Amino acid sequence: MKRLYFTLLLGILTYSAHAQQDIFREDPINSPEIHEDHTVTFRIKAPDAEKVSVTGSLDADKGFASITYDLEKGEDGIWSFTTPELPSEMYRYHFTVDGVRTVDPANAHAIRDVGNLSNVFIVGGGQADLYKVNEIPHGTVAYRWYNSPGNDKKRRLAVYTPAGYESSTTDYPVLYLLHGIGGDEEAWLGSGRAAQIMDNLIAEGKAKPMIVVITNGNVAQDAAPGMGSAGFVKPVFMLPHTMDGQFEATFGDIMKFVEDNYRTENTKAGRAIAGLSMGGFHTANISLYYPDTFDYIGLFSSALGVRPPNNGVTSPVYQNKDDKLKRQRDNGYKLYWMGMGIDDMEMIYKGNADFRKQMDGIDMQYEYHETQGGHTWNNWRDYLVIFAQRLFQ
Amino acid sequence: MKRLYFTLLLGILTYSAHAQQDIFREDPINSPEIHEDHTVTFRIKAPDAEKVSVTGSLDADKGFASITYDLEKGEDGIWSFTTPELPSEMYRYHFTVDGVRTVDPANAHAIRDVGNLSNVFIVGGGQADLYKVNEIPHGTVAYRWYNSPGNDKKRRLAVYTPAGYESSTTDYPVLYLLHGIGGDEEAWLGSGRAAQIMDNLIAEGKAKPMIVVITNGNVAQDAAPGMGSAGFVKPVFMLPHTMDGQFEATFGDIMKFVEDNYRTENTKAGRAIAGLSMGGFHTANISLYYPDTFDYIGLFSSALGVRPPNNGVTSPVYQNKDDKLKRQRDNGYKLYWMGMGIDDMEMIYKGNADFRKQMDGIDMQYEYHETQGGHTWNNWRDYLVIFAQRLFQ
Repeated sequence: MKRLYFTLLLGILTYSAHAQQDIFREDPINSPEIHEDHTVTFRIKAPDAEKVSVTGSLDADKGFASITYDLEKGEDGIWSFTTPELPSEMYRYHFTVDGVRTVDPANAHAIRDVGNLSNVFIVGGGQADLYKVNEIPHGTVAYRWYNSPGNDKKRRLAVYTPAGYESSTTDYPVLYLLHGIGGDEEAWLGSGRAAQIMDNLIAEGKAKPMIVVITNGNVAQDAAPGMGSAGFVKPVFMLPHTMDGQFEATFGDIMKFVEDNYRTENTKAGRAIAGLSMGGFHTANISLYYPDTFDYIGLFSSALGVRPPNNGVTSPVYQNKDDKLKRQRDNGYKLYWMGMGIDDMEMIYKGNADFRKQMDGIDMQYEYHETQGGHTWNNWRDYLVIFAQRLFQ
Repeated sequence: MKRLYFTLLLGILTYSAHAQQDIFREDPINSPEIHEDHTVTFRIKAPDAEKVSVTGSLDADKGFASITYDLEKGEDGIWSFTTPELPSEMYRYHFTVDGVRTVDPANAHAIRDVGNLSNVFIVGGGQADLYKVNEIPHGTVAYRWYNSPGNDKKRRLAVYTPAGYESSTTDYPVLYLLHGIGGDEEAWLGSGRAAQIMDNLIAEGKAKPMIVVITNGNVAQDAAPGMGSAGFVKPVFMLPHTMDGQFEATFGDIMKFVEDNYRTENTKAGRAIAGLSMGGFHTANISLYYPDTFDYIGLFSSALGVRPPNNGVTSPVYQNKDDKLKRQRDNGYKLYWMGMGIDDMEMIYKGNADFRKQMDGIDMQYEYHETQGGHTWNNWRDYLVIFAQRLFQ
């Protein structure tokens, strides 16, 4: 085969490239290079640069906090830096070259998180093996559009169905999985690696086969930026209609679509809901507003303390929440689970502490799981791993 | 709502950001800015840079060939350049800052094409309206894994089912859509905007509702880089097992999966196959190797002519091709369509000319459509628009 490749390469190289697609460039730099000892070398060719740094979720001792390291310039104009040994995780990073933020030109794998592209890599051999695609049965990920009469539009969501769903005839329980502010229906599948986590947990027998429905909590959008009618708009982390009750109030449109279109266990025992940050706020409110609907509730770094009182929002979703909480307690549920990083933003940490105090005050059961780190995907992936194993048992 | 946002922003800004996810940064630069008159301004803040340029598919007069423009530095350290008026198209571009290739840090929308990330934007008001998400019924895009006994592995593909598929009971025709060398099952949905094209053509009544199956032609992979068991590997545009007959020989595994799992018209009249570049080469060969199977064959900038004779490949797929071609002629078909850019690589242009000559020599029918430009997604999107309208009529 070698000869064919050389012939084709020659043909390409000897021909003017300007009229061809930009597919033939292969960056000769190896970056990131993950070494056997789990150190990682970053490299970028920048002969004319004065200063190059890498910023990423690389501070493993501090719960994968963001840290910046300077790269060192080699004689060939290639800058490099090798990290300390890194534990098994999925990492994100970007370079800054003379003050300009850039993805690693040698690493084509970048994930958009709200408005920022970051490169990613995985160090295996531990927890992050759950984030890898392994040679096991895989579920299906489908991007579908559902009718939301409550928002007077068609909206997009993602549905994970576990391996075997299509060839079986049984009903499946459903986990609704909600993103944070500025996220969308792609976030849990990108940075969150939700499909890989579910595939791996189910294949290992650690989680029950379940459908996972990944929604878009910004009802001002019909779909993620670039995939909706607004076009390739600039993603912002604050949008109207994210915390005004409208998403929660119209969540019934989503449940109706899912239960009409999939073989679902349409019982409280067959429904779970969880979300990160704003999605945790949504989760708490949806589980109050739709009484006796969910047996499993998961709040991941939930944005509970961010809502000031009397801010002009009049949604019935946020009315009489104390009474609704007592109703939820009385109706009962199997698991109310909260995950929180000790380095999270103070108002969020405090908001959750206050909520736990409120629950304690009315003898309402929950489980609280505190981890290292802050408001990070490292924690949210980890929380999903823990929470998913507790569902539908 | 403003007050809530300010409160939350304040909370974020006054708190150390290192332990939080990198979602709160919003690049204040507006780039690209698409003006009313269809000129486009690129901007990047790089106060310390000596030279900044933008390279992209911006040479509209030359079939959207790649062109590089220098940006001009403003007093605020923001470099900018405004293009001439651009016709309606989907464009790709990247910046080069002092010799370092970078995506536009203000534009979160980038698509991977083989090993390179490029930013994208759409200028509407014409052809590219077909590449937009419009407020019309949308089909479903599902990423599924199928069993390929011929490759002894599970492999991933994407299936577009048109709006209404799930709620109907009728059978649908199928278009198999193949990528080029170095591409994968994500390429036609990313750069190719195949889902948007099909949604729009079907909604306008210009194409029949059909299933579109988007395959991965590199049988050395189980899935696209980052989504397969090889992990976040570096995508390369040359892989073994892309042009050795193995993909074509095991294409039956794909058809079996699709026809077993979807409501398909399992007739020659209900099957179409098309591909770009290497995928056009695959298409030609699959349509020969599976006789009397496809009534519609589309070759988009097909990589005919790149295969030197006697290169050690012994696949039965490539044996007796002259005889197979006569058999294909005799069996008949409804459409054999070839698209080609006049500025394509010489060996590809000539390979197609030679193939047409061969077809002429045996009185075999085809349609040939020559366009401006070269080996580009601009052409491939355009060819899909044309070809899809001719199918299953």
